[in-house]
Amino acid sequence: MATQPPSVMEHIISLCKRRGFVFPGSEIYGGLANSWDYGPLGVELKNNIRDHWWKRFVHSRPDVVGFDSSIFLNSKVWEASGHVSNFNDPLVDCRACKNRFRADHLVENGLHEPVVGLSNADLTTLIQTHLKCPVCGKKDFTEVRKFSLLFETQIGVVSGDKNKVYLRGETAQGIFINFKNILNSSHVGLPFGVAQVGKAFRNEITPGNFIFRTLEFEQMELEYFVYPKQADQAFEDWLEAIHAWLLDLGIRPELLHRHEIEKEALAHYAKRNVDIEFDFPFGQKELYGLAYRTDFDLKNHMEKSGQDLTVLDPETNQKVIPHVIEPAVGLTRTLLAVLTSAYTEESVPDAKGEDSTRVVLKLHPKIAPFKAAVLPLSKKEELQAVAQPLYQELIKSFACEYDQTQSIGKRYRRQDEIGTPYCITVDFESINDKAVTIRDRDTMQQVRIPIVQVEQYIKDKLS
Amino acid sequence: MATQPPSVMEHIISLCKRRGFVFPGSEIYGGLANSWDYGPLGVELKNNIRDHWWKRFVHSRPDVVGFDSSIFLNSKVWEASGHVSNFNDPLVDCRACKNRFRADHLVENGLHEPVVGLSNADLTTLIQTHLKCPVCGKKDFTEVRKFSLLFETQIGVVSGDKNKVYLRGETAQGIFINFKNILNSSHVGLPFGVAQVGKAFRNEITPGNFIFRTLEFEQMELEYFVYPKQADQAFEDWLEAIHAWLLDLGIRPELLHRHEIEKEALAHYAKRNVDIEFDFPFGQKELYGLAYRTDFDLKNHMEKSGQDLTVLDPETNQKVIPHVIEPAVGLTRTLLAVLTSAYTEESVPDAKGEDSTRVVLKLHPKIAPFKAAVLPLSKKEELQAVAQPLYQELIKSFACEYDQTQSIGKRYRRQDEIGTPYCITVDFESINDKAVTIRDRDTMQQVRIPIVQVEQYIKDKLS
Repeated sequence: MATQPPSVMEHIISLCKRRGFVFPGSEIYGGLANSWDYGPLGVELKNNIRDHWWKRFVHSRPDVVGFDSSIFLNSKVWEASGHVSNFNDPLVDCRACKNRFRADHLVENGLHEPVVGLSNADLTTLIQTHLKCPVCGKKDFTEVRKFSLLFETQIGVVSGDKNKVYLRGETAQGIFINFKNILNSSHVGLPFGVAQVGKAFRNEITPGNFIFRTLEFEQMELEYFVYPKQADQAFEDWLEAIHAWLLDLGIRPELLHRHEIEKEALAHYAKRNVDIEFDFPFGQKELYGLAYRTDFDLKNHMEKSGQDLTVLDPETNQKVIPHVIEPAVGLTRTLLAVLTSAYTEESVPDAKGEDSTRVVLKLHPKIAPFKAAVLPLSKKEELQAVAQPLYQELIKSFACEYDQTQSIGKRYRRQDEIGTPYCITVDFESINDKAVTIRDRDTMQQVRIPIVQVEQYIKDKLS
Repeated sequence: MATQPPSVMEHIISLCKRRGFVFPGSEIYGGLANSWDYGPLGVELKNNIRDHWWKRFVHSRPDVVGFDSSIFLNSKVWEASGHVSNFNDPLVDCRACKNRFRADHLVENGLHEPVVGLSNADLTTLIQTHLKCPVCGKKDFTEVRKFSLLFETQIGVVSGDKNKVYLRGETAQGIFINFKNILNSSHVGLPFGVAQVGKAFRNEITPGNFIFRTLEFEQMELEYFVYPKQADQAFEDWLEAIHAWLLDLGIRPELLHRHEIEKEALAHYAKRNVDIEFDFPFGQKELYGLAYRTDFDLKNHMEKSGQDLTVLDPETNQKVIPHVIEPAVGLTRTLLAVLTSAYTEESVPDAKGEDSTRVVLKLHPKIAPFKAAVLPLSKKEELQAVAQPLYQELIKSFACEYDQTQSIGKRYRRQDEIGTPYCITVDFESINDKAVTIRDRDTMQQVRIPIVQVEQYIKDKLS
């Protein structure tokens, strides 16, 4: 259930464009559907979330190492993983108007019926019997067919099946096929995890909802390899770990919900799946997925490649194929959750004492694009002479903005909207008392601090 | 000129696989040509180079902001940028054995003649007159034809030109088409720069030399927008800035060379181009390219999109199209340069006093994958009780490895090979004197330090 007013999505999209978080992709050429570019603030926020995840799950854990595989993998990888045969959407065409639709979505939206477990034949019957085209209103649907979600391209300059590669549909497979390389080169042993951040690509016909679902997106996936007997406990441990991480990012607890996926709706590789869902403005949707992939992937790669991917269980002295627990989250989707959770409209009195709306991104200071803004009260040179050295000193330690345009009120408003936790105002007093005013984003309270103490003051607040 | 013994490339490739820096892509399926995956240490080294670049050129510069655009851009972008018509390689087939070659490389290697400025017709004449197929020895070449370097794929599920997109051939275009979005949302004005790190894709027929040239690769590009009159000075400033950055990464100065590109060899968008070349084991090759792109890109996008991409020059009160200075470097290529520069073989006496070879990666501590390794002398519990708390404390501040396998000599050897600047050995004395031995990677000298001072000792060394 949404805790936000209905138009909050539009407000966030507008703020994202106005302040430089997210722009529509290829906009000057009329756009490219479901493609978005990350502006100066968006890329900082995204990097901060990425680095926070990496520090938490790679650097702070002796049992996890990082990885970065190619986007192009040998196409045999996707045959072995089951993606070539199983990774597809059921689509249906309207013969009258030539529009194409996700068949399961048509049934869900048109008949309000659960679609989990329905075959394409079932979907065809339901659609052809009960539904009209939502675009032209005719009842002239084709059969439901499956369409692959994998993007294809050709490497080399001779076209043909031999040179076909898929853009990876998930980052996970690059880890599975390197399982032995990682084991042999690193000082890890079961249980251990391999983490990866990178782009994945899915050719979906109905993506949308801003950056929630896009054709290309960044995943943060972790494959945690365990002996089969450790799998259930590891699943529980990871569920707690990823939930705790989302809270640590500053996401409001009441917006997060756990959802155990029904058996019929599990992905082709999964034995168990719990999603942590988030109250997006358009509904409660998957944010962080935790899947028990069993030995599905390693077993298939072992069979198809002929390579031994087993390990020796020291307790039983038997060779076993490790099982896998996979916590996987979309980086850009997390960014949207963070923005949604942080977006706040407050009623405050304006300069004339009348009601006005203050928009604040209450981002956790740890992930805010700028930790502080240095704001000389005017463009006068004597203020710059105080403000510039302070700014130059601060940017050695953290990301800061220097802003001397417009009125101080408008500048506070900008910093509130981009989530900067501390505004440092340099005024004419500062020249004499060598002190500045620091304004807290959330409380709007101001304190006067000697310039020499500013860096330590903010560092203390951030830690 | 190479300062390394001829086989150093093989040594580096072998070390990269053995220690987990770089693995051949899709290896268990027989590989995928010119594709490489970054292992646990490779990804850390790569991330450290990336973060060092971002901190230097984005966070520490008030005149530069970051950006992150899509890999899929509207295909009109690549038509306007000239890539669809100009971004191609001249290829020639041997009719007898069906092999395909880069025509310019055939002429360079077979006739030892400069190919700069030669047309495809010129190349055809030279090849058909003078050369034999290097594979089958026949003289039966086709005409030289151009082949696009852009990878194509289809978005949406209906194929056809309308849905064709290219994987970006450079990250730069995503910045150019967002020029106005960035200007309008950020507090920047000319001159200012926009920096981006991300994958680019080029369908080249003769890539190779390990990770030097690959089909997909990570670029770190920066587009610096200036008034035309500022361009020449900005070019000189950036040349110094990028050279200084490479030195700051720890690359040995004598391995870097500046090369002013001849007019005839300039890319279709460039007016001037200076490469900083590096002595790779396979020759002196481009590492960091600095190009003066003039107003070529913005002008074309302005014409083709119909959008106004001019700015007002306050001095003349005239609208002008900004000019662009572009410092562009490959992240993965930089990683190879860093590895090459750091790779050292030293003759040292072994335990028996005989000559043995010590392999050391003399990485700058700033970018080393691990800053320190904690090595308890044995697996005994009383040593773990001292070593584990120290390790747990250290990983809060920087990336560390904990290693208790094998003999201490072998463990030092591993840390030398992966470039860890400090090895912390916990021995049986440590239990009583609460002190450990810290070994310096480069000098191999050891000092004994109280455990409570270890963190600060290493922090001081790193800063």
